[in-house]
Amino acid sequence: MLKNISSPEDMKELSYSDLDMLAGELRNKILETVSKNGGHLASNLGVVEMTIAIHRVFDAPKDQIVLDVGHQSYVHKLLTGRQNQFDTLRQWKGLSGFTNRNESVYDPFGAGHSGTSISAAIGLASANRLNGNDKYVIAVVGDGSFTNGMIYEALNNCTKNDLKLIIVLNDNEMSISENVGGLSTYLSKIRTSKKYFALKRKTQSFFHKIPIVGDKLVHGTRCLKNHIKKRVVFENLFEHLGLDYLGPVDGSDIKKLETVLNEAKEKNKCCLVHVLTVKGKGYKPAEEHPEVYHSVGTFDLKKGIDISKKSTTFSSVFGEILCKEAEQNESICAITAAMATGTGLEDFESTYPKRFFDVGIAEEHAVTFCAGLSANQKTPVCAIYSTFVQRVYDQLIHDVAIQKLPMIMALDRCGLVPGDGITHQGIYDCSYLSTIPLIEIFSPETYDEMAQAFNYGFHHNRLVVVRYPKGSELDYDRSDYKSLGEASYMDFSTDNYDIAIITYGRVTKNAYDAIALLNNKCRVRLIKLMKVYPLDSENIVSLVEDAKMVYILEEGIKSGGIAEKLASKFAQNHRMRSKKIVIRAIENPLFEQGDLSSLYANCGFLPEQIAAEICDVY
Amino acid sequence: MLKNISSPEDMKELSYSDLDMLAGELRNKILETVSKNGGHLASNLGVVEMTIAIHRVFDAPKDQIVLDVGHQSYVHKLLTGRQNQFDTLRQWKGLSGFTNRNESVYDPFGAGHSGTSISAAIGLASANRLNGNDKYVIAVVGDGSFTNGMIYEALNNCTKNDLKLIIVLNDNEMSISENVGGLSTYLSKIRTSKKYFALKRKTQSFFHKIPIVGDKLVHGTRCLKNHIKKRVVFENLFEHLGLDYLGPVDGSDIKKLETVLNEAKEKNKCCLVHVLTVKGKGYKPAEEHPEVYHSVGTFDLKKGIDISKKSTTFSSVFGEILCKEAEQNESICAITAAMATGTGLEDFESTYPKRFFDVGIAEEHAVTFCAGLSANQKTPVCAIYSTFVQRVYDQLIHDVAIQKLPMIMALDRCGLVPGDGITHQGIYDCSYLSTIPLIEIFSPETYDEMAQAFNYGFHHNRLVVVRYPKGSELDYDRSDYKSLGEASYMDFSTDNYDIAIITYGRVTKNAYDAIALLNNKCRVRLIKLMKVYPLDSENIVSLVEDAKMVYILEEGIKSGGIAEKLASKFAQNHRMRSKKIVIRAIENPLFEQGDLSSLYANCGFLPEQIAAEICDVY
Repeated sequence: MLKNISSPEDMKELSYSDLDMLAGELRNKILETVSKNGGHLASNLGVVEMTIAIHRVFDAPKDQIVLDVGHQSYVHKLLTGRQNQFDTLRQWKGLSGFTNRNESVYDPFGAGHSGTSISAAIGLASANRLNGNDKYVIAVVGDGSFTNGMIYEALNNCTKNDLKLIIVLNDNEMSISENVGGLSTYLSKIRTSKKYFALKRKTQSFFHKIPIVGDKLVHGTRCLKNHIKKRVVFENLFEHLGLDYLGPVDGSDIKKLETVLNEAKEKNKCCLVHVLTVKGKGYKPAEEHPEVYHSVGTFDLKKGIDISKKSTTFSSVFGEILCKEAEQNESICAITAAMATGTGLEDFESTYPKRFFDVGIAEEHAVTFCAGLSANQKTPVCAIYSTFVQRVYDQLIHDVAIQKLPMIMALDRCGLVPGDGITHQGIYDCSYLSTIPLIEIFSPETYDEMAQAFNYGFHHNRLVVVRYPKGSELDYDRSDYKSLGEASYMDFSTDNYDIAIITYGRVTKNAYDAIALLNNKCRVRLIKLMKVYPLDSENIVSLVEDAKMVYILEEGIKSGGIAEKLASKFAQNHRMRSKKIVIRAIENPLFEQGDLSSLYANCGFLPEQIAAEICDVY
Repeated sequence: MLKNISSPEDMKELSYSDLDMLAGELRNKILETVSKNGGHLASNLGVVEMTIAIHRVFDAPKDQIVLDVGHQSYVHKLLTGRQNQFDTLRQWKGLSGFTNRNESVYDPFGAGHSGTSISAAIGLASANRLNGNDKYVIAVVGDGSFTNGMIYEALNNCTKNDLKLIIVLNDNEMSISENVGGLSTYLSKIRTSKKYFALKRKTQSFFHKIPIVGDKLVHGTRCLKNHIKKRVVFENLFEHLGLDYLGPVDGSDIKKLETVLNEAKEKNKCCLVHVLTVKGKGYKPAEEHPEVYHSVGTFDLKKGIDISKKSTTFSSVFGEILCKEAEQNESICAITAAMATGTGLEDFESTYPKRFFDVGIAEEHAVTFCAGLSANQKTPVCAIYSTFVQRVYDQLIHDVAIQKLPMIMALDRCGLVPGDGITHQGIYDCSYLSTIPLIEIFSPETYDEMAQAFNYGFHHNRLVVVRYPKGSELDYDRSDYKSLGEASYMDFSTDNYDIAIITYGRVTKNAYDAIALLNNKCRVRLIKLMKVYPLDSENIVSLVEDAKMVYILEEGIKSGGIAEKLASKFAQNHRMRSKKIVIRAIENPLFEQGDLSSLYANCGFLPEQIAAEICDVY
């Protein structure tokens, strides 16, 4: 079946039993590929039938389908001419794990972060309207994204101008972990009522049948009845906001889905179709533990993932550090934006449930909420991936720094993030966070340094950021490091040094390995910063003063980064004049996903590249 | 009356007729002060009675009142011990125009940007709960802020844990201009129904009175009736989200307000009180044109503001440039986040209504919506104040840059923003925007340069930012400027130069005036950048190559700014070695409001300070 589908057109004449077979093949293909390459599993297994139905009812790429987040895009990719490349999923030069405008005309808008789809779709649909064409735009959004404020900003704007816009709410009762908040409770109410729109019809006829009885009540009752009919009874939350609503509909029933989607097409204003899906559908372990199978590495399909095995990572060590501190420090609270598992907070959640807050995919709220906790003497520790912290730049300035409130930001997934790629790189944070007043940024290379950094945060009333990469501490011989202030350094020559390399975080090992490659061609001092902002410039200058060349290596973007700041300090310091200053950082950050070595190679960060560059410019 | 109120306690025993007098005095005080000092008028006039009622029902500062945005804080300030300083409103060393934690214990959380109050209030209330005390937290939010996504993220989180949290929705049917979107329509529906909660009671008894008639229908009808009662009839949008709802209540009736607020206190979960107020109440011109009297400069109380008089400003010139381009270029669309008037888009709105989009106070949505328009070949021009663009850092990376979509950002209120102060400074944008891939940033000093910059944007498919200050172009003799690339320069000596001053934007005049003060003490070249990112470094280096000292002046923060970038480039350039490099930018941005001269003085930007520093370090 699947092999014959080179575009959605090829699916339109199939019978429903053929489609069921196709759905099975799609699930197998996804399971097979993801268990080899890693990726997002549970969400993709849940949307197989829904994606088939959407592609049968609409005419992509003329009609434009925008997937929120994009981690439910695998079925869409397999149906839109990308099955032959599917085994390159998430690999260097391969298929992206998200929708991507560079990859296909079937991806009119890319994503990776949550909550952007309806806004983009309104833009596409408004342009279509101005251009006078009748293309449909379909935004497919998970209920998890409905905890994000952008979705509401968009909902508040989608009823203007009778756009040809259909919003498909993919309701699987989960974001990454279980969903939170008032809206989630509300959706489950709708779900339990099951046939909301059948009910609506019944309700209408019911009202027509109510006899208007009594004397005094006649007028009042009639008014009330009209009022209820118009304003209250027939409107659920989405209708309150002015949308048409259809659903909830069973997301595994292609035929029903098609009926409802066709009905949505006939509406002459923006319509929300509520589809009930099951995360992980068709693969038992994923149905049972959808949070474990949300984003996975390589695993054995038959055995499933062994949940009992937990490796030590920066995230898990963060969780341990925080639990230990919370035991003796009652003010500690942990805040996460739908990422308790990813950020290592499960133990904290179960040990200190009252001091644990999962706010949903709502980073802006998370940080301002932390500021509120802090204003009443709590010590909030907010754990978010680096890339999502981009969403709280204003809140960190406006609600934390300006209010002069202390808090701790635990930034996970800093630096290059291989498989997720372009939308998930944690390479901007040092640049934008260092523009925030009063902030202090630590970038530990080891678990020990990480503990030191958090301890600094626990014991100083400051706005402190601790940033660390995905995965585990790297191994090499650190015994020769000496400390000076918040930096440490290692000399690779018994007398003086000619070249100073300054770096920080995970990529320090690349510098260390590069020095080994340089052999005895030059005398090198390696300086590793632990606190990267504000810079301890007097100490740093004294550490590099004798060098002829200073080579600054940064696993982050160049513009506004730590390397630029150092170079700028050097330019203003008379002791540093006449030295050669070289920066190796990321100048063009818009590259796609790949394994870490490929990404390092792309940035010139491999030890052999560093060694060659140093030889070259020295 | 007012003179006797040194804290809210002093108001608690007053009779309602005394309170009416007090309300009148408060309005007079506000009118008198704002007409002299400028400030936010209409929103403050609208909340007089509501603020009195809140302070009588609750016990501030024990109970904590958080005002959203804070531009409705004047009554609150006058009632909480700040009336003697009130004539210093918005002045240097005076009272802030917003709530401010540094100013008073009655301001538990400061603001200036919209939509943060409920998040902060949940934080305060959660801390209170953990601390085991029974303090109330009251968040007062305008309906304008309800177009902002943070409010929803917060609403989705406020029903957890039965917090002692009351949300007062101050519904005046306006944000700054008229309100937009589905929610606004919804609120006006509630408003027209007026007595929603009286209706609720009636509805309840109505349902009890419906006879269950007929044969077949009995069971179905009963179920349906129960369903409707539980889930549908009795829930409005806020109740759907799990909040208790009280209202709408007339915001000018102190007694009624107190009754409802006391009822809210008795609820044992988060409750929203819907209050109807009138923007500008008590001052006829402001009631009639609340948008004109939202934020005002000095004006004559008796005559009111002359609406027909319009001065030429960067904002108005932007509007003209855009209208002119739109006439011949059908792809041009204008997008604003509730700031059509402030950003100079009124004419565009009336001339090209189909291509004009006011999305409400929803900056995140605005930018991603623009990206959607752009993906379907429109040319979106998004006009937002610099300080609010801080909210779209992630959207600019994720939805514009990564998607490789062209669009134009028109950044108004860049640089120091005197009266609004700390929360509104446009001094971060060069730093954080220059970390965004593919972005190009222009900072014109004149209307002419502004037109050039926008023309560049119209004719190149790029992500282009044009940034300009509040107010008008400054006047001085520019005839001697010569151009090189995207910079221009002026020599103040007939032979060579020893000192090069590099600067950009409005503060260029300060440098020009400083050079006049230097007289003939040294030979100076003044270099003004128009495009500030990416830097045209080869040309710039060639322009300063002969200098012994390069002085870089920047009306923006130092960290990550253009000056640091230049210094870093110089450090890496062998032609620039051994030169003295000095940066004068804003190192400590957390200062409060004041007139522009005071702020300049605080930053060392006055011509005499610049001249003195140059003499000193040269």
